[in-house]
Amino acid sequence: MNFGETSVRVREASGGQIFTGIKKDLKTTDDLSIFYTPGIAEPCRRIAADKSLAKKLTIKKNMVAVISDGSAVLGLGNIGPEAALPVMEGKSMLFKQFGGVDAVPIVLDTQDIDEIIETVVRIAPTFGGINLEDIAAPRCFEIERQLVERLDIPVFHDDQHGTAMVVLAALQNALRIVKKPKEDIRVTFSGAGAAGIAIAKLLQEWGVVNITMVDSRGIIACERPQLHGEKKCFCVHQEGDLSVAMKEADVFIGVSKKDLLTPDMIRSMASDPIIFAMANPDPEILPHLAHESGAAIVATGRSDFPNQINNVLIFPGFFRGLLDGGITKITTQMMLKASTALAKLVPDPTADRIIPSALDPGVADAIAQAVKS
Amino acid sequence: MNFGETSVRVREASGGQIFTGIKKDLKTTDDLSIFYTPGIAEPCRRIAADKSLAKKLTIKKNMVAVISDGSAVLGLGNIGPEAALPVMEGKSMLFKQFGGVDAVPIVLDTQDIDEIIETVVRIAPTFGGINLEDIAAPRCFEIERQLVERLDIPVFHDDQHGTAMVVLAALQNALRIVKKPKEDIRVTFSGAGAAGIAIAKLLQEWGVVNITMVDSRGIIACERPQLHGEKKCFCVHQEGDLSVAMKEADVFIGVSKKDLLTPDMIRSMASDPIIFAMANPDPEILPHLAHESGAAIVATGRSDFPNQINNVLIFPGFFRGLLDGGITKITTQMMLKASTALAKLVPDPTADRIIPSALDPGVADAIAQAVKS
Repeated sequence: MNFGETSVRVREASGGQIFTGIKKDLKTTDDLSIFYTPGIAEPCRRIAADKSLAKKLTIKKNMVAVISDGSAVLGLGNIGPEAALPVMEGKSMLFKQFGGVDAVPIVLDTQDIDEIIETVVRIAPTFGGINLEDIAAPRCFEIERQLVERLDIPVFHDDQHGTAMVVLAALQNALRIVKKPKEDIRVTFSGAGAAGIAIAKLLQEWGVVNITMVDSRGIIACERPQLHGEKKCFCVHQEGDLSVAMKEADVFIGVSKKDLLTPDMIRSMASDPIIFAMANPDPEILPHLAHESGAAIVATGRSDFPNQINNVLIFPGFFRGLLDGGITKITTQMMLKASTALAKLVPDPTADRIIPSALDPGVADAIAQAVKS
Repeated sequence: MNFGETSVRVREASGGQIFTGIKKDLKTTDDLSIFYTPGIAEPCRRIAADKSLAKKLTIKKNMVAVISDGSAVLGLGNIGPEAALPVMEGKSMLFKQFGGVDAVPIVLDTQDIDEIIETVVRIAPTFGGINLEDIAAPRCFEIERQLVERLDIPVFHDDQHGTAMVVLAALQNALRIVKKPKEDIRVTFSGAGAAGIAIAKLLQEWGVVNITMVDSRGIIACERPQLHGEKKCFCVHQEGDLSVAMKEADVFIGVSKKDLLTPDMIRSMASDPIIFAMANPDPEILPHLAHESGAAIVATGRSDFPNQINNVLIFPGFFRGLLDGGITKITTQMMLKASTALAKLVPDPTADRIIPSALDPGVADAIAQAVKS
């Protein structure tokens, strides 16, 4: 099947893939009096007296905004708000299908940091949570930071934290297979954008000590001039390119570009190398080539290979837990718990199954329980 | 039935009254590949190449934002965004039930004119139309004017134009009954807020010549110092209170407050007085009292009296027509057509039936056809 053509065709036939439904048809005069004037005035009055009731009496209880400025969409780059809309609809479908969360795409006609922040703050009273999506680094960090500070609903950047939690879950099971303790492993990253930095941070919080990050200019060395922002937190006293950083590494985490990882680099790694080659749609190295070069475990972002690192394993259940738990701020502790819960859904991991499939039943429930616990 | 209590109770049981649904369940790996990655990239690419395709391939085709700052909600006044949410949900329900339009409430955490305008402009790429709701006068005029100029989707302030169209439809049928030509009638308004001004403008466009507006300070006289804005367009060379303005009037249009119209004022009107007493929830005069004082025809905003002036008769069908017709700007001509179409749905009007009921079938279809014609 040509998925792209099919995607266009179903959309031509029916417009967008989500709709707003009503929980009760309006068929009688009494219905109109209950759900519109005059009856509607009473819930309004109650909320005016106690704003927190909006989370009980309105759509705020279960509605999340999926917000993007269209600046970093899938592998397509900066395609703008209208062109980003199909992805945000797809995301909203996944929220509903797997988490029972009502989600509305809101694409923004601005890519200015302050304007994005102001806009989200102003529309926030409608929503029970904010999911930031496909906003380019580094502005996504500042946007998320300020929104978390200013809003009293949870703010989540899935490209960062969703990815980080799934990677950590996969890594937990991979390390069980190769029997290496987290404190001892050396992890090399290719890619230091939103996802790379977020994964590195979560791994560090979990207990990984030895991390080397490589971006398009090579190893992020502390000696690099004008190094600042999030990258500086991960600088090392070493210089060189990816091949230098890969020597004796136990784990490769790729969130960069097609074919950047070579067989020789894998051969230079420590025993039982773990390769997470997650560049989309084409990984840093193809799984069969990685295995031929000695990789013990390989994961990618693709559904047509084993071990798909897929954010849908986390975000629907994560928001289900946030909304049901009345949680207003996301903590690292919640992310570690959710990640561990995801790993535990595969009780006996093998090299070809370190992570559940997106369609496995019970995933979202387990994540939601972990978030609330 | 206590409608207010019932409204609170159903909301406690199920949260808000609208939800986001998905048109196709995601059950297989192929579904995920079509509606999310990798298939979703193709509609994105097409829209990136031709932005206008968003109206065919995404929710923009049928999705309207119901936007309020919560500053003038029903009879409740300035209750803020969260407390306004139930009304916006109710409105969204009516959009879907009667017009098949997907509508999402967006309540805003600002009441600043420029901030409201900027926010709506920035979220507009998501939507096929904007319905402004319960925003106080006079700022609603400026907000609407600027949004109409800046956006390439229709912008509609229902409190103004929806009300105006329903009133004009009712007036057309009322005048048929009392056999008075529109050019000859004298119309007196009580209330010169958003609705009053919009009704007066539409009546003028339709052909009513003689209009006197009265606000809380009396007749809007051209001699009044510092008279400006929309009110100035309707000033007259006469001074006095409502009782002065009512003498020899043929039509009373009230969008003001409870009990402002007295039996004596009705007795001072021309023959066969037409009384539209639309203050909510309590009209300017109760229908039985108006009839006892000589009124030929009485309409109110209430569902428990005959002739309910109810905006739901217009807005769902009006937006249905705008979206289906690919219309980007609303014109006065469209509004006059929709209003006349609504009047014609009552082929033989009587004093107790000058306007269809909100639940009559076929209303939205007729309005949509008129808008597109």
